[in-house]
Amino acid sequence: MEPFELSLAAAAAEIEARRLSPVELIDSVLARIEATEPALHAYACVTADAAREAAAHAEQEIAAGRHLGPLHGIPLGVKDLYDTAGVPTTCSSAVRADNVPGTDAVAVERLVAAGMVTVGKTHTHEFAFGGITPTTRNPWDTGRIPGGSSGGSGAAVASGTCMVGLGSDTAGSIRIPANLCGTVGLKPTYGRTSRRGVASLSWSLDHVGPLARNVYDCALVLNHIAGFDRLDPATVDVPVPDYTDGLDRGIAGLRVGVPANYFFDQVHEDVATAVREAIGVLERLGAQLCEVTIPYPDQVLAAEWGILLPEASAYHQEMLRSKAHLYTDDVRLFLEVGELVLATDYIKALRVRTLMQQAWAAVFDEIDVLVAPGMPVAAPEVGAAEVAWPDGSTEDVTTALVRQTSPGNLTGLPTLALPVGFDAAGLPLGMQVTGRPFDEATVLRVGAAYEAASPTVGRIAPVL
Amino acid sequence: MEPFELSLAAAAAEIEARRLSPVELIDSVLARIEATEPALHAYACVTADAAREAAAHAEQEIAAGRHLGPLHGIPLGVKDLYDTAGVPTTCSSAVRADNVPGTDAVAVERLVAAGMVTVGKTHTHEFAFGGITPTTRNPWDTGRIPGGSSGGSGAAVASGTCMVGLGSDTAGSIRIPANLCGTVGLKPTYGRTSRRGVASLSWSLDHVGPLARNVYDCALVLNHIAGFDRLDPATVDVPVPDYTDGLDRGIAGLRVGVPANYFFDQVHEDVATAVREAIGVLERLGAQLCEVTIPYPDQVLAAEWGILLPEASAYHQEMLRSKAHLYTDDVRLFLEVGELVLATDYIKALRVRTLMQQAWAAVFDEIDVLVAPGMPVAAPEVGAAEVAWPDGSTEDVTTALVRQTSPGNLTGLPTLALPVGFDAAGLPLGMQVTGRPFDEATVLRVGAAYEAASPTVGRIAPVL
Repeated sequence: MEPFELSLAAAAAEIEARRLSPVELIDSVLARIEATEPALHAYACVTADAAREAAAHAEQEIAAGRHLGPLHGIPLGVKDLYDTAGVPTTCSSAVRADNVPGTDAVAVERLVAAGMVTVGKTHTHEFAFGGITPTTRNPWDTGRIPGGSSGGSGAAVASGTCMVGLGSDTAGSIRIPANLCGTVGLKPTYGRTSRRGVASLSWSLDHVGPLARNVYDCALVLNHIAGFDRLDPATVDVPVPDYTDGLDRGIAGLRVGVPANYFFDQVHEDVATAVREAIGVLERLGAQLCEVTIPYPDQVLAAEWGILLPEASAYHQEMLRSKAHLYTDDVRLFLEVGELVLATDYIKALRVRTLMQQAWAAVFDEIDVLVAPGMPVAAPEVGAAEVAWPDGSTEDVTTALVRQTSPGNLTGLPTLALPVGFDAAGLPLGMQVTGRPFDEATVLRVGAAYEAASPTVGRIAPVL
Repeated sequence: MEPFELSLAAAAAEIEARRLSPVELIDSVLARIEATEPALHAYACVTADAAREAAAHAEQEIAAGRHLGPLHGIPLGVKDLYDTAGVPTTCSSAVRADNVPGTDAVAVERLVAAGMVTVGKTHTHEFAFGGITPTTRNPWDTGRIPGGSSGGSGAAVASGTCMVGLGSDTAGSIRIPANLCGTVGLKPTYGRTSRRGVASLSWSLDHVGPLARNVYDCALVLNHIAGFDRLDPATVDVPVPDYTDGLDRGIAGLRVGVPANYFFDQVHEDVATAVREAIGVLERLGAQLCEVTIPYPDQVLAAEWGILLPEASAYHQEMLRSKAHLYTDDVRLFLEVGELVLATDYIKALRVRTLMQQAWAAVFDEIDVLVAPGMPVAAPEVGAAEVAWPDGSTEDVTTALVRQTSPGNLTGLPTLALPVGFDAAGLPLGMQVTGRPFDEATVLRVGAAYEAASPTVGRIAPVL
């Protein structure tokens, strides 16, 4: 087994025991990048020299007895939406081709302070405004999309070119690639993690979080990136627990909500079957299943787009005036549409969101977590504009990708995406677990319980 | 001295000692209403029979030993924007001429539960959308406006036709009439008081609070109307202290900010002189004066209107489609303008507000309260469209009325308006005291200290 194939926890244990040097690990990952990048294009930029240097430094520090903990020497992929000091940060857009920030985004700064080694910047759908990530391919089948917008991080984590990938999630951009690439991905509660230094898509829906190979790794990363930041006005001063603590405590007696509507309404049979089986696993582990009704199902996409479009256009307005020709056509069109939205319509979307949040809070009076299908389909083919349904209807790909994940952005509730197996073609299928505000601990505990009972989590894509 | 002339505290003491019956008090107030209403038109509707009945009930309860406390039997005027069960609630608009709610607004419900007796609904500028209150006159000079939008409550409290008037404040609507009519008025912190059952003007700027004859009375009322309400998503679950507690503790050592810019930039000489004298009083009482710079002075009105206009239009949109002809011309025009605001511009106003809030928070690192002129002028004449300045310039009346008060709405900080004397024409002049979020206690303490040293607070207008 090559070092890049180790789980984070295994690699960390080897490093701590000095049986594995961070330099060996990073070299193994860089070699893996060299082998897979021609097929995947997960990285906007690979910082091999800086990574080798950081790994050498980590090796020295650890040799000198200054081991910083389980993230020390672990390879990190950073979505190209995050500022990285001295490293190009393009948001995978020609608009920012020349942008080299002076400082790291808060999340990067904290993970680097914990000893992580950045191996490169992972591709995003341009400015995080899309679910496809057209630059990048799915490591389970390079004729398929990785999902997005954090598609580079999804492809990189799944193929073993980093152990943790940072993502951001405004309509599903962490959970879509996590599900389509078969990784774990966590969108924390709105306000749990600072977004400072991460380009905004829609400030009232944006979340920052990790993609990783398993739930424990997500929890480890969350320990470092969670917390109040007075310069991100959305963050809340709620204590940060140790999220790895009690992760293996089991879920006996936990009330697990199963949606009677919305989330199972239009999903591929393979997805429904795999998620129902996963729910069966939770029940056998002692969870108490409760059927719940999802409130305001018909308002989800109207509210999501009614908020996202104008907020994105407000952020991009000046750049759109001076550099419109540098945007890709689909993103430019979205930004132009957002400029036409009236304030009264945006305000109505905000009001619907508030009603939705209140109604979801009432649902969580009856349950501890909600479990639902993640993506309605396995990864679509590259270039496909539509998803075809058995009843003969078709659905725009972007709509199919965001309709299962947008409730998590509108409600702001913490949501974990995790794999539940593969379809007949070998493509990953996924589910999502949603919890109460700032109760990432329970969401992660459910994921960990499922994962321990499931053989499919954490597998590395072969990239054949 | 007639009962209506008593201070609330004095009336409460007389009632508790059973030397004054609530029936006598209400009869005295109703007689005062009869005498002054032809000149003032402070009330949209007087509920004389219900008030007499409630007073008789209070009399019985108190006689039976069930005295509810200092508000029991005290006459209350309710701004016609507040729902009142079984009593017409028109928002002083033909649009709602036939509206009779089934339940009381939360604030009314709580004050009635504390024993207060509603004597009627006080006029508002139509739907709270204006600072004039054209229906109503100023009790110190009936050729002058009372200010608004809570003009009826201002005129009523000042003239002795109620002891407490409920108001609401979106751009100054409690503080404008308080200053122009010479009463005390408190806009609490955003989220301190529930707005449930009060017609919205601009939900992210709306505040509910009292007008009263002195600071102690405001504190008493705040004790009852403050607190969390899960059905007003803006309210915050912060403990409610007894606001009358420690009100007379003095202000020795308190750091009182005096603005070097903005608030004194264009105010009438009489106002500046009276407020500077009041600040001198605070200094003699032991306060430590600190000059501070008001941040973003040039963005105040752009942010206020950029938020208020579209939020109001969103609230009114359906009514405007079906009943446009029933609005007054000025309000209809405002609502039509608000429908044209783009979401991107509204979002920019929201972002400026956030920057403003952060910068004001930094100012309050250096000071405990900020003291500033309230209205830039004494009450303008009825029908005046402009205020004339000594340099020959003129200013739209509405702009003159809202520019000193809007910072309190944008920042959400608690602000107390209180009288600081009269000009040569006998018109009241006022100042405002602003504090930290949820620190109404300090703001009220400053007001109480000033009031105790000043002879002018609490005088009743003669309405000649």
